[in-house]
Amino acid sequence: MAPEMHPQRWGDPDLAETLPETVRSLVDAFVGTRDTTTVDEVAQPAPGLAGRLLDPLRDLLGVEAVLTDDATRRLRTRGKSTPDLLRARSGDFIDAPDAVVRPASHEDVTAVLAWAVEHHVAVVPFGGGTSVTGGLSARRDGYAGLVSLDLVRLDRLLAVDEVSRTAVLQPGMRGPAAEAALAEHGMTLGHFPQSFEFASIGGFAATRSSGQSSAGFGRFDDMVVGLRVATPIGELRLGSAPASAAGPDLRQVVLGSEGTLGVITEVTVRVRPVPAEKVYDAWSFPSFTEGAEAMRALAQSQALPTVLRLSDEAETMVNLASQSDIGGEGVTGCLLIVGHEGADVSDGRARTGRLLETLGGTDLGQERGNAWAEGRFHAPYLRDSLLDVGVLVETLETATFWSSRDRVYRAVKRALESSLGEGTLVLCHVSHVYETGCSLYFTVAARQGEHPLEEWRAAKAAASDAIIEAGATITHHHAVGTDHKPWLAREIGPVGVALLRGLKVAADPTGVLNPGVLVP
Amino acid sequence: MAPEMHPQRWGDPDLAETLPETVRSLVDAFVGTRDTTTVDEVAQPAPGLAGRLLDPLRDLLGVEAVLTDDATRRLRTRGKSTPDLLRARSGDFIDAPDAVVRPASHEDVTAVLAWAVEHHVAVVPFGGGTSVTGGLSARRDGYAGLVSLDLVRLDRLLAVDEVSRTAVLQPGMRGPAAEAALAEHGMTLGHFPQSFEFASIGGFAATRSSGQSSAGFGRFDDMVVGLRVATPIGELRLGSAPASAAGPDLRQVVLGSEGTLGVITEVTVRVRPVPAEKVYDAWSFPSFTEGAEAMRALAQSQALPTVLRLSDEAETMVNLASQSDIGGEGVTGCLLIVGHEGADVSDGRARTGRLLETLGGTDLGQERGNAWAEGRFHAPYLRDSLLDVGVLVETLETATFWSSRDRVYRAVKRALESSLGEGTLVLCHVSHVYETGCSLYFTVAARQGEHPLEEWRAAKAAASDAIIEAGATITHHHAVGTDHKPWLAREIGPVGVALLRGLKVAADPTGVLNPGVLVP
Repeated sequence: MAPEMHPQRWGDPDLAETLPETVRSLVDAFVGTRDTTTVDEVAQPAPGLAGRLLDPLRDLLGVEAVLTDDATRRLRTRGKSTPDLLRARSGDFIDAPDAVVRPASHEDVTAVLAWAVEHHVAVVPFGGGTSVTGGLSARRDGYAGLVSLDLVRLDRLLAVDEVSRTAVLQPGMRGPAAEAALAEHGMTLGHFPQSFEFASIGGFAATRSSGQSSAGFGRFDDMVVGLRVATPIGELRLGSAPASAAGPDLRQVVLGSEGTLGVITEVTVRVRPVPAEKVYDAWSFPSFTEGAEAMRALAQSQALPTVLRLSDEAETMVNLASQSDIGGEGVTGCLLIVGHEGADVSDGRARTGRLLETLGGTDLGQERGNAWAEGRFHAPYLRDSLLDVGVLVETLETATFWSSRDRVYRAVKRALESSLGEGTLVLCHVSHVYETGCSLYFTVAARQGEHPLEEWRAAKAAASDAIIEAGATITHHHAVGTDHKPWLAREIGPVGVALLRGLKVAADPTGVLNPGVLVP
Repeated sequence: MAPEMHPQRWGDPDLAETLPETVRSLVDAFVGTRDTTTVDEVAQPAPGLAGRLLDPLRDLLGVEAVLTDDATRRLRTRGKSTPDLLRARSGDFIDAPDAVVRPASHEDVTAVLAWAVEHHVAVVPFGGGTSVTGGLSARRDGYAGLVSLDLVRLDRLLAVDEVSRTAVLQPGMRGPAAEAALAEHGMTLGHFPQSFEFASIGGFAATRSSGQSSAGFGRFDDMVVGLRVATPIGELRLGSAPASAAGPDLRQVVLGSEGTLGVITEVTVRVRPVPAEKVYDAWSFPSFTEGAEAMRALAQSQALPTVLRLSDEAETMVNLASQSDIGGEGVTGCLLIVGHEGADVSDGRARTGRLLETLGGTDLGQERGNAWAEGRFHAPYLRDSLLDVGVLVETLETATFWSSRDRVYRAVKRALESSLGEGTLVLCHVSHVYETGCSLYFTVAARQGEHPLEEWRAAKAAASDAIIEAGATITHHHAVGTDHKPWLAREIGPVGVALLRGLKVAADPTGVLNPGVLVP
């Protein structure tokens, strides 16, 4: 069984830690800290589903696959956004599912959906539970109950085609399990988002995840060549070729559908040989703009390394201060992490280095690059430590075209700072690049006031308004969930919303799948 | 105004030619020829739309934008598949639209759609008229009439963003006009399908076109970053970032929608600098399988040249015989065209060459590569010359994963040969490659019997059955139209069809857009 996260924190409960002193003093100086408490006794409603409703499910899947105990239900309550964590810390588990259902096959999933349609029960597909946009906070009013469809038992590598370099994965596989299974065939998926250690293959597909190696391996949606989906109206199998002109690409409809059209039961992905070499270099650029221009030059010369991540001045300063063991002195400007992975990276590394030097970069060597690689999945733990000392910390992200990068950056930063007031720290990095544009990922730290949930909601709304008004996308890789829905409607307009609703009504006519998520 | 094709032939009427003697003797030996006649007096029905129905359109767009003369209507009748040409040659223009309507703006298109909904008139969006799958053969029964929505006046480059390397093109621009306009900014789209000289930007998007430089520039759907679409329910604008996690990618719903969901009125594309160097080399491989394995190695090493096109043994033999001026002697096996385009191609060319040599290739030099490049848009003219001498000649295509390439190739070839009988020549090439698979493009030549339309229909059905039964896609870049509809339904299954219908009902509730096309 895949590891479970703490119901009130990110990740492995054993890895929780107190805030490193260097970070605490920095945060004290800029933001301020205070004591907080976490409620251990957590309230959640008694299961709302009458036991007799669950009996047919127990007959179908076995009693061990239909769980109603409090501990399991708490672990399937909401996701891991800061608002989710704040509510869990305050003991609010009011959104707990009535039951957690664990199918072991595509056929099981189909049977659960038929049961849900028959009894009008809301179904929330659950992969790794790492959503930070309310993707697990489905609406329950108007339904006989709400169950978490936990895909944890669908956790196998089904096939590897070494000629075509594809693999068929079940949706409940977490990132590390998928990589381990592929490594036995000498293959890798190359998908390493920050949520890698806990997020699932099905979730990567359903939310259009993008990993830290996206410059070299592409986004998860680039990797998917085939899908098998259980829907309330039947089975959908897609992916008869790498590319096709046979109408709209329905794979791109399932990708990003966040469990609202069907439950993904198999994902066929492109895989590549495990790289023999991995080298992470750090570079410094005088400014965020100069660093971003260098990234643009790499992307537009179609000679991207595997990892490319540029911190703005503020993030560079905080990062270096929090890694004082490797020394922050002597570094000014903006830190760029440049990772090369492959059978032999020397040529690519030399080519990238020449270009970066020409564009004003300074080679800082591998020490800081390796420090980044080692800590790459750690930031969510740091968020918990900051919440522990009363700091409101959260992230949000967008993407835009190169010519709008600076405008979007400034607008979002300004919106967050005005909303949260003095002592707010806004950090930003670019971690995904394309020929035509890039992502912008913001980390915000502010002092928690009396009503942190409301304070964050207002700041997030201001930032989201700024994103849409600047013409950027409401999310580059965090997905829509419930949190981004109003801004999705503005981004795609009424006709776009009508298309989404048309898809929803076609695939899920009675609306049992993740109600209230994604579709405005 | 963009050039018009001959109503009964491909392309520029002045470029029609008689069959070169070398090809004729080859065809005589293998297939056989006979005399044919083309009917000059062409029957078409009188306009079925009452004049008073068109009056509001004339008020909206001006009288010069609403044409009902026979010559114009003939030019907007069906597309350029061999069945389309055979029917046109026999004088059958029964499918002519009642009127040809020429909007000059997005707002004009919106007004035409409102008029069509009000009067329940079928609307066939028309770009370049190059469909080879019946994409212009909409159903008219149940409608008050049928108009061709000719986008020829929407023919401008609206904007170039040189920082983001994007350009906004109107849909009626033909390939050469788009390239000429971009060249003024030093840019190229890099999209060169065989239909390039006549096909339109809107058509490329609506049909998921793929060009001869797809190895380097990608498919057209890869190039599109934004779309503006006029639908019967309003305007749709998509593309706020290069990539996004904001739900299903609705751009990928409009791409491939073949005018059934809306009329594309603007396409924002990624552009690149015009390559300073273009070098086309020819290589020889002992067999189709060895050549394809070399292509796979290039694709999977992520070091693709710009153009990569491998002919099987039969196509190699015919190609060389028909280019006798450059000498066919000394070449055995299979011809591979390898094109490198860029600022400086020497490194890439050397790297490709080393790999191809390792994999059993023989360098034939540039002469045959240049011959291919010069003749790259010529094949459709040759088809007309072959039809003139009684040879039934047509193409069809698919794509599949590498591990199925040989199986699909043999199955389609066998289906065509069994259906068309002795003296049938089936040629094949691979011209689009991906890490996980490739396209297969077949050219068929057979003696025309008494009922060539029926003979071809049976052969095409046999080949299409073989494609679907082998698990490949019914079309890699020719689109669905009316011809591929039954096989699309088999490829995506009933749930896939339900999703398409859900989209159709949402965007075009009364079904006026291209009825009978694409959506099963």
